[in-house]
Formats: sequence, structure tokens, C-alpha cells
Amino acid sequence: MTTELKNDTLIRALLRQPVDRTPVWIMRQAGRYLPEYLKIRTEAGSFMNLCQTPELACEVTMQPLRRFKLDAAILFSDILTIPDVMGMNLYFEEGKGPKFANPITSSSDIHKLPRPDVGESLAYVMDAVSMVRRELDGKVPLIGFSGSPWTLFTYMIEGGSSKTFSKSKKLIYQEPALAHMLLAKLADTVTDYLNLQIESGAQIIQIFDTWGGVLCARAFKEFSLRYLTRIVSGLKRENEGRRVPTILFCKACNTQLEALADTGCDALGVDWTISLREARERVGSRVALQGNLDPAVLLADPETIHREVNHTLTSFGKAQGHVFNLGHGITPDVKPEHLGALINSVWELSPAFH
Amino acid sequence: MTTELKNDTLIRALLRQPVDRTPVWIMRQAGRYLPEYLKIRTEAGSFMNLCQTPELACEVTMQPLRRFKLDAAILFSDILTIPDVMGMNLYFEEGKGPKFANPITSSSDIHKLPRPDVGESLAYVMDAVSMVRRELDGKVPLIGFSGSPWTLFTYMIEGGSSKTFSKSKKLIYQEPALAHMLLAKLADTVTDYLNLQIESGAQIIQIFDTWGGVLCARAFKEFSLRYLTRIVSGLKRENEGRRVPTILFCKACNTQLEALADTGCDALGVDWTISLREARERVGSRVALQGNLDPAVLLADPETIHREVNHTLTSFGKAQGHVFNLGHGITPDVKPEHLGALINSVWELSPAFH
Repeated sequence: MTTELKNDTLIRALLRQPVDRTPVWIMRQAGRYLPEYLKIRTEAGSFMNLCQTPELACEVTMQPLRRFKLDAAILFSDILTIPDVMGMNLYFEEGKGPKFANPITSSSDIHKLPRPDVGESLAYVMDAVSMVRRELDGKVPLIGFSGSPWTLFTYMIEGGSSKTFSKSKKLIYQEPALAHMLLAKLADTVTDYLNLQIESGAQIIQIFDTWGGVLCARAFKEFSLRYLTRIVSGLKRENEGRRVPTILFCKACNTQLEALADTGCDALGVDWTISLREARERVGSRVALQGNLDPAVLLADPETIHREVNHTLTSFGKAQGHVFNLGHGITPDVKPEHLGALINSVWELSPAFH
Repeated sequence: MTTELKNDTLIRALLRQPVDRTPVWIMRQAGRYLPEYLKIRTEAGSFMNLCQTPELACEVTMQPLRRFKLDAAILFSDILTIPDVMGMNLYFEEGKGPKFANPITSSSDIHKLPRPDVGESLAYVMDAVSMVRRELDGKVPLIGFSGSPWTLFTYMIEGGSSKTFSKSKKLIYQEPALAHMLLAKLADTVTDYLNLQIESGAQIIQIFDTWGGVLCARAFKEFSLRYLTRIVSGLKRENEGRRVPTILFCKACNTQLEALADTGCDALGVDWTISLREARERVGSRVALQGNLDPAVLLADPETIHREVNHTLTSFGKAQGHVFNLGHGITPDVKPEHLGALINSVWELSPAFH
């Protein structure tokens, strides 16, 4: 397992060490914008089957690396594997997002949720991690990930996606003790899950708090940030003789950047609603920053993409600790050659910033 | 028309003058959470008929004031009346949001859009304003409003609501000159529209930039903020011998508070993702702040609502220039008596902060 890592640019940038150019990877780089992904997705029958079959998850993880000069692979999986193995039984209805066969309908359902043995129930994830590491053979590092406790909580309490998050919010405001009980259980499970991914070969960890931004500032600190801090402090920080950097990506949480930088993580993912210059001024050199091009820029022509990549690099400026990425996942309507144009622009323009 | 204003608490607070208690009004206070609204909405047949019939618009505007001790009325209308009279012909499909009978499908469609004579085509809005003023008889001030140029632009270019705003973003990135032409036309039309509302009797103006927050920081300044500034500087600032305060409400734009305070407006609407304390530290005493309780709090019990109202008042602290409101519109699933609990709490708790 401890093969030499031939390209450690991303790990170095996440640890604010000098690099020759700005490393780049893309959230949802293995995804629906790739025709080869759509083919394997159709063959797999269901999305869950794709996640749960290590050979397929591994193949999908590798697909974007065959097309593009990316500085990392990210494990193909879903953030809702944890509620699934807590007994809620996840499934996907075409065009309707995630659903649970056993939804939560009462307080007593929440009390009954077990803390799952993820080593056993999510062994398929660990198998996929090991398989991707073998396949990568040290070419680039592998990123493991999980959803944040608050984000998992919203899907579990709402029974799927939501626009208003009314059930989750009603619960935290009216029954905070019950909410904390579930969030604590989720935080401990996520910690187990990520440590197992690290032991299986994940070399970088990203935690996605997709829905932290729907909370008011005070509730964010109490119901999301507290559990992010608990996870970061419980993570294995070194493996195979190398630091395992942790990235927190909290969408629409830009008013919380300072607090997030204080969790002990190595890097913050930043969405496009704040300039990297301002974000850097606010967090200083405590953490690296990852982002933050608006994914919609990839719908424009390659010339526009080149110009916007340059704006993003210029906004961060000449300093250590920038990882190029989008401010959110790549969307299915992007042409793969447009992503190619973005990655080529980062390779071409970024050396001047180092 | 120039009747005495018996309750000027809101106007005083917006101008950062001393008040005895914190004034309160609620975004979408005339809306679907009220059974009496639903009744008149059904009788009107279509939503557009409700907006376009001054007697009905006036009646709906007055409804919440009969139930609650509110410090303002806000004109009942829709932000998309302007694209409607630019020839796009607005209609609503049940559960699908706004649509246009004549959508924009090409650059030449954009070039052809006229600058409408809103005094003529939106005379029904001015009639409703005059009628509400007569009905109010100086009890509380009347708020007039418009959508911001960028927000109107997104609906016009997307052809309705959107999750990704891909068409609007592709246009600003790839054809910025064309986008600016339309935005400038919208800004001038909005200025005309709001000045006519003021002349017809609106005593406070609020501009809603509902979708400014989907833009990256740089694009927000270029494609939204620039036109907000243009409108504010073109507004009639006094009428009936009294200052007409202007409120800018830009949802999910908290990284832009300082820039928004520099537009020359009197107050900023703030959503719930930033604490009022932090917002106040950032904008100082340049502007008043309006907000910012999470509308989801109204789904909890009255005791919880009382506690959260107190948190909001405490977060702003003992200072001039706070207007109590939600951080976004009230949602249809709220029980009217819960809004009553909120308003009573503001009346009960806020004198201690003055």
C-alpha cells in the first residue's frame, strides 16, 4: 500500500508548503457530465449498485483521470451511505433525489437509530478505497470523504432533499436535546468512517457540509460547527508516514470562515460568493483555501473560461496554500472539453503565481 | 394625501433616529399563510388578476394589519410586473412559478425589448398605492417595492425560476455588453417605477435582489450592485415633506454588506446567515439593519419564538436603527397565531433595547 506518491502537489498545497504550480481537482469530477460515466451508470442498473460494487466505484473514480491532468482522485460514493446502514435504507427515485425506505416519523424513531459498525456495514467502501489505491499506483493521491453530521441530519429528518428544511429546523429549535443526541451519534460514526477510509488508503479527507448555510449564524455554531470540530479532533492525522490533510467544505457559510479555520482542519473549501482575496484576508495563513470558480463559467466558451481561471488565480495571488477547484460540484450540462480547457488553463497560468 | 402619519416608528428607525420600541413588519405579510388571503386569491381566479385589480390588491394589503400590530403596510404586487409590461406577458402555472407567454429565445429578442412607459402600463399599481393610502388614513406608512435589475434579468433570461441560473450566467460571462444593455434598461425602468410609486403615496421603498447571492463576488459588483447604486441615486428621496427611506434587501449577499451600505440607501435587509451583531460591526452606523429571524422559527411553538425574538433583539443590541423582520418571506405553512406571537414578543421585549 505504501507506494511512493509521484505527484504530491495537492498535499503540499493543502499543508501550505511551496509548490511549482497550483494543483487542481474538481468536485464531482467523476460524474454525469462524462459520457463514460453515464454508460457505466446505466449498466449498473441503480446508483446504489454503482456505489456498492467496489469494481464499479473504482472504475468510475478513475475515469476523469484518464481524460484530464488532475492532481487527485476522489472516491466515488454517496454522502448518504451512513444513514443507509443506520437502517434507513437509501434508494434513489429518478429525478427525485434520495429517499429512505424506513423514514423517521417520530422522536422514538430517532432514539432507536443505532450507531452502526461501519467497518462491517460499509466494508464495500473500504474495498473500493483499497482498489483505487492499487489502480492509482501512486500517480496522484486519493481523497476520501463524508457528509457532515448536520448535512446527514437534514436528509434523515426531512426524508430526502428539501428547500425549506422545516422539519430539521423545527427539531433543533424545539427539541435541541434530541437533535444533539442524533448529531453526536452521527459525528462519532463519521469519525469512525473517515478513520477507516484513511486506514484503507485515503490520503486526504474532505467533509461536505452542503447544508450548513441554511442555518442562522448561532444555530450553525451549535448544530454544525461543534460536530465538525469534534470530527476533526478525532481524525487520524498521519498515515503511511505522511500527514493526511483535512478539508472542510461548507457551502454558503462564508460568514463562518474564521470559525471554520479554528476547527483544526488544514484547508477550507470556499464557494464563489466570496473572493479568494477576501477569504484569505479573513483566515490568514492558518488554513489553505480550495476553490472557487462558479461552476456556471464552464458553460461559457474556452476563452471565457481561461479569463475566469486567471481572475481566480489572481484573486488568491502569489502565496502558498491555494488548491484550484470549483465553488461547488460540476454540473451535468458541462461539455467535458470545457473542463479540459479549465484544467489546461490552470496548468498554463498558475506557475507564474509560485 | 398628506394626512398626518400617526405611527412613524418604522421611518424613524430606518433613518437611525431614536424610537421607543423596535418597529416590526414581515416580508410577505400579505400572503398564503392567511386564510383570508387564500379566500380572496381563489375568488380572484388568477394571481395576476389579484395584482391588476386595485380594489383586490388594496384589500389584500390591508388584511394582515387587521390581525397584527404591524408598523407598516407593504403594497401587494409581484416583482415581475416590469417584464410583463415589457411585452413578455407574465402568467403563473399552479405550483410551477412564473412563466412568460413571450420568452426570450435569442439576442435579438433582448435588443427588441422596449423601455416601457410604466406610468401608463402599470397605472393599476399606482391606483392600488393611492387606494391603500386612503384606506390606511395615516395609521402606518406604506412600503412600495420593486425587484432589482439583476433579479428581474434572471427571470427574463431563464424564462422563469431556476436552480442553476445557467442561461443568465452564460450571458453575463460570454456577452457582457448585451447583458449590460438589458440591465441598464431595467435599472432606468425600475427607477421610473419606484418614483411613480413614491409620487402615488409610497412612503418607504424596498428593492428586492432575491438572486444577487447566486453571483460570484466580482460579478455581483458588476451586474447587480452597479445597477442598485444607479437606482438609489435616481430615486426621489423626499415626498410630502418627509424623507422616503430606501431599503435594499439582497438575499445571500452577506459578503457584500459594506459595498451595499455604500450605495446611499438608508437600510439593509439582512438574511439569517449572519448575526446582526456582526452585520452592525461591518456596516457601522451608515445604515439601519432590517431582519433577520429565520422564517423557520415560526414553525416552532410560541415559547421558542419568544426566545428567538429575544436572541435577535439582543444580537442587534441597544442602538438605533433596527427594524424587526424575518430574514426572508414568511412561508405558507406558518400558523397566523405564531406570527401573532412573534409580533407580541417584539412589542413586549424591544422597549428594553431603547
